[in-house]
Amino acid sequence: MPYGKGAGGDGASGTDRRKQGSDLSGGPVIILVRPQLGENIGTAARAMMNCGLTEMRLVAPRDDWPNPKAVAAASGADDIVEGAAVFDDVPAAIADLTHVYATTARRRDMFKEVVGPRAAAAEIAAAGEGSRIGILFGPEAKGLNNDDVTLAGKIIEAPLNPHHSSLNLAQAVLLVAWEWRMTRIAEPEAFVAGMADQYGEAGALPAPQADLIRLFEHLEAELDESGFLWPEDKRPVMVRNLRNMLQRAQLTEQEVRTLRGVVKSLATLRGERRGRKKGR
Amino acid sequence: MPYGKGAGGDGASGTDRRKQGSDLSGGPVIILVRPQLGENIGTAARAMMNCGLTEMRLVAPRDDWPNPKAVAAASGADDIVEGAAVFDDVPAAIADLTHVYATTARRRDMFKEVVGPRAAAAEIAAAGEGSRIGILFGPEAKGLNNDDVTLAGKIIEAPLNPHHSSLNLAQAVLLVAWEWRMTRIAEPEAFVAGMADQYGEAGALPAPQADLIRLFEHLEAELDESGFLWPEDKRPVMVRNLRNMLQRAQLTEQEVRTLRGVVKSLATLRGERRGRKKGR
Repeated sequence: MPYGKGAGGDGASGTDRRKQGSDLSGGPVIILVRPQLGENIGTAARAMMNCGLTEMRLVAPRDDWPNPKAVAAASGADDIVEGAAVFDDVPAAIADLTHVYATTARRRDMFKEVVGPRAAAAEIAAAGEGSRIGILFGPEAKGLNNDDVTLAGKIIEAPLNPHHSSLNLAQAVLLVAWEWRMTRIAEPEAFVAGMADQYGEAGALPAPQADLIRLFEHLEAELDESGFLWPEDKRPVMVRNLRNMLQRAQLTEQEVRTLRGVVKSLATLRGERRGRKKGR
Repeated sequence: MPYGKGAGGDGASGTDRRKQGSDLSGGPVIILVRPQLGENIGTAARAMMNCGLTEMRLVAPRDDWPNPKAVAAASGADDIVEGAAVFDDVPAAIADLTHVYATTARRRDMFKEVVGPRAAAAEIAAAGEGSRIGILFGPEAKGLNNDDVTLAGKIIEAPLNPHHSSLNLAQAVLLVAWEWRMTRIAEPEAFVAGMADQYGEAGALPAPQADLIRLFEHLEAELDESGFLWPEDKRPVMVRNLRNMLQRAQLTEQEVRTLRGVVKSLATLRGERRGRKKGR
């Protein structure tokens, strides 16, 4: 459906498709455990903001907190960085949560359920009213240690290239947050940017079929005259091919007018050239 | 199905589930248009490597090429950086491709089909044998210009927070590459790490039900004696609750043995305390 919803629309809302982000409550808490660099805290906050997540917690950040480098790297996600609660240890950071996931890049020698980011996002999205969900991300160099992972109910492990599965902190946050967002914001169907849609949104109007048919007939008349649609037994398939090409282009009213001008202009040019030739 | 395929498995292969990455041919070409910083070229290559993509092209990189900063930032994806072909302009970089997508963070005043990364990935994965697909990513500061976008058949726009939709270069590459990967590698079903699975892979064995039932009966006998399963009319529901809890834990044989040891040990402790109390 080429004239579907715009990407700015919110799949969950039937009234104002532009209010994307308005019903993104209930997102998981992002918990950075012993993060080392302020920059990475900032870029992780930015990835959260990209996906509509708002609550960050920090467990024992290595450097002083607040950290101006984190705010600088957040580029617009300052609120998330400045609002981050800081805890001494993981148990304190997860005390009020009902479900905790631990993200890991390498397999642990531990009996614990492992899910991918997409399955985790589906579980989080399906969690009931009373749920408060958090996701643990380990420090940049080594990731979560086994004691951290033990505190989580499940492990999130992305099925990346097994020889290169390690992501930087912000990228790991982005993947998980993106998958969560995709459970909330149905990715819009393909649509044509700038085109008016069935919601009456401003934009160019798709051409009515009558305009298209007039364009086809105009073009074909000129091509008959110029000798392009020849020999006669090939004409039907040539016409069908031309019409199919133009149909596929999903032309607007204005574009049809433009193309008719192009046809007219080329036909006139041909007439003039022929006139010049004759005049010679 | 908790004992499903391991995350290291390749959903597309029925024989060796560990050969993930082996049938990832046919991935799109990642084309960085006028990239500014070598570091970003390197981190983009790393994101490609994470997702099993291998071919990078560069259009008019701002700094000298080859660029040691790009290799340094690639951390393991050196082959991709060193193998990147460099072109003077976008038409040259896409000349051999059959389908080109342009990634944008902001809406263009242009009539062109827009798809999300997930839909684009599905299209790319479904493309026929003769297809060669490329994805354009713009320079860090401003993204692709309108002439670049015009050269593409479709636009990829991620439905991110409309107030914070801009991603850094490597993150944009990661999202698109991740979505492509997810079309190739079925995300494994949830499974329990370390647990032997139905493929006979090494790991701990899930406990047979007979072991579990012996554990239940042992526990309940001790709790009958200790007076916990009382009053008698509440006993059935208390027993059911305990059994359900232990069932949910998906215990291994070793864990059942451990728990029986715990029950025995606690019961003995109680016996000793009672003995001490009596002896006083």
